[in-house]
Amino acid sequence: MDKKMIFGHKNPDTDSICSALVYADLKTQLGDNVKPVRLGELNKETEYVLDYLDVKAPELITKVPEDVKGVILVDHNEFQQSVDNIRDVKILEVIDHHRISNFETNDPLYFRVEPVGCTSTILYKMYQENDKEISKTIATLMLSAIISDSLLFKSPTCTKEDVKAAKELGEIAEINVEEYGLAMLEAGTALDDKTAVELLTMDAKEFSFGESDVIIAQVNAIDTGTVFERREELEAEINKIIKEKELDLFLLVVTDIINSNSDVLAIGKATQNVEEAFKVKLAANRALLEGVVSRKKQIVTHLGDTFK
Amino acid sequence: MDKKMIFGHKNPDTDSICSALVYADLKTQLGDNVKPVRLGELNKETEYVLDYLDVKAPELITKVPEDVKGVILVDHNEFQQSVDNIRDVKILEVIDHHRISNFETNDPLYFRVEPVGCTSTILYKMYQENDKEISKTIATLMLSAIISDSLLFKSPTCTKEDVKAAKELGEIAEINVEEYGLAMLEAGTALDDKTAVELLTMDAKEFSFGESDVIIAQVNAIDTGTVFERREELEAEINKIIKEKELDLFLLVVTDIINSNSDVLAIGKATQNVEEAFKVKLAANRALLEGVVSRKKQIVTHLGDTFK
Repeated sequence: MDKKMIFGHKNPDTDSICSALVYADLKTQLGDNVKPVRLGELNKETEYVLDYLDVKAPELITKVPEDVKGVILVDHNEFQQSVDNIRDVKILEVIDHHRISNFETNDPLYFRVEPVGCTSTILYKMYQENDKEISKTIATLMLSAIISDSLLFKSPTCTKEDVKAAKELGEIAEINVEEYGLAMLEAGTALDDKTAVELLTMDAKEFSFGESDVIIAQVNAIDTGTVFERREELEAEINKIIKEKELDLFLLVVTDIINSNSDVLAIGKATQNVEEAFKVKLAANRALLEGVVSRKKQIVTHLGDTFK
Repeated sequence: MDKKMIFGHKNPDTDSICSALVYADLKTQLGDNVKPVRLGELNKETEYVLDYLDVKAPELITKVPEDVKGVILVDHNEFQQSVDNIRDVKILEVIDHHRISNFETNDPLYFRVEPVGCTSTILYKMYQENDKEISKTIATLMLSAIISDSLLFKSPTCTKEDVKAAKELGEIAEINVEEYGLAMLEAGTALDDKTAVELLTMDAKEFSFGESDVIIAQVNAIDTGTVFERREELEAEINKIIKEKELDLFLLVVTDIINSNSDVLAIGKATQNVEEAFKVKLAANRALLEGVVSRKKQIVTHLGDTFK
């Protein structure tokens, strides 16, 4: 296969799926031979987006086939969030908006990380830099990724560039951004049919802070209380995951997308780092983090500092 | 200090010095408060450039002062090649053209690495992207960096983008690129007044390949034989460095800039990796690597693979 594969992180969110599809479109327009793929199941929010547009989901892979020429990572760079055989494949490019950690190559590559709220915001600039056309479908994919990552522009990760990109993409897509965005986010909060394990793994990311291994799982909700009705079952599953992966901490972040707070459940030997990072006291392993909605900017940063 | 500091790698080469000066100019034009600094002594080649332009060298620092707001890395990203207290400072940006390794942050940042031959080639594009003016002096600094990193366009690291940038910069600077470039490169080969230690450290970079620590030092020469007249003295000093830094390998690469070959001297317990990487037999610790002139593209890549 002379193809290159493009994919976002494991437990893909809307940005990871949309950015893979979008960048594949841009690369194809630029004459490259690429294929968007995904490293996990779609979440309800992303399903809503693809259904709305009648776009097929990228093919699911568990490892990069040996005959693939090289890979392009979008929306992540940390190897533990990437495909299992990432160390055996040639990484050609990275387009991302996260902290950089646990990434290395022997060869120089095209690596573009910008401190914006969404990978698709960077891709939008790349269409402009390359003077390439953005179809209505592609515009809606990018817009959906920005709405998802910024919680409709309410997250502190959201920058002026994201807002500007979303506005312009909304015009290209001829879509009511607020209305579409709310429907999309609400679709993502339908958690009733999820098992405890699914809920804990659907948007879980692994981090290494110094010598400590941490999983931070995030779910969005309209009413965070309903998630915690299943606290006992969730704690039992979390303890299994901690044991299996030898984690120092598992943090479940249940984000109230209406009031912009997060209710967290922290388990593991490093729970005191959570208390230190957010200046809270855990009660029954839980705490309310006022105004916290962004894993990247409000959780990883502060929690990471306490492991130094 | 509300300032941000910009610097290239330790043992700065012409690209590290010029790119710090150049990016400080661009950032200042963009309204930022920045100061270019350097992490080591200038080499003869860079001295030639700054003398030619009557430009003052950036201030030498050994660590980032505590009151500096943040730092911008140019021409490197690996922490062991950076300032000693790099882990204690806020990294705001990285502009580089090397492999990515041993770099991490807790915060997202602006990180731009492109597989071109020289950092200044990326900076040249950034002037254009931001529609900012390039003075004759700034053009000559960028041109010098490109000539240095590409050995006057003869290195395999040199891309079309580097050649195009150099041509356009030569026109802005109103300079005869070939003539100036040769004089500049020759100035860099004046090694007679260097002690063995200076010769081994003036352009030495540390690398971690898996669990192994390696230093690769490079010097340019018109006649590589004259360097090896001091082989015994060099070997004695290399053995001291290996012991002190607990290295697995020290590789001295003496590059013939006229014939585009390199004569290497390899010492340490991992010398068999050199033989494996370049399919050569070391004799008296030496080997000729035909056509090899680029540490980055022809040495780090192949050598790194053998440590996997």
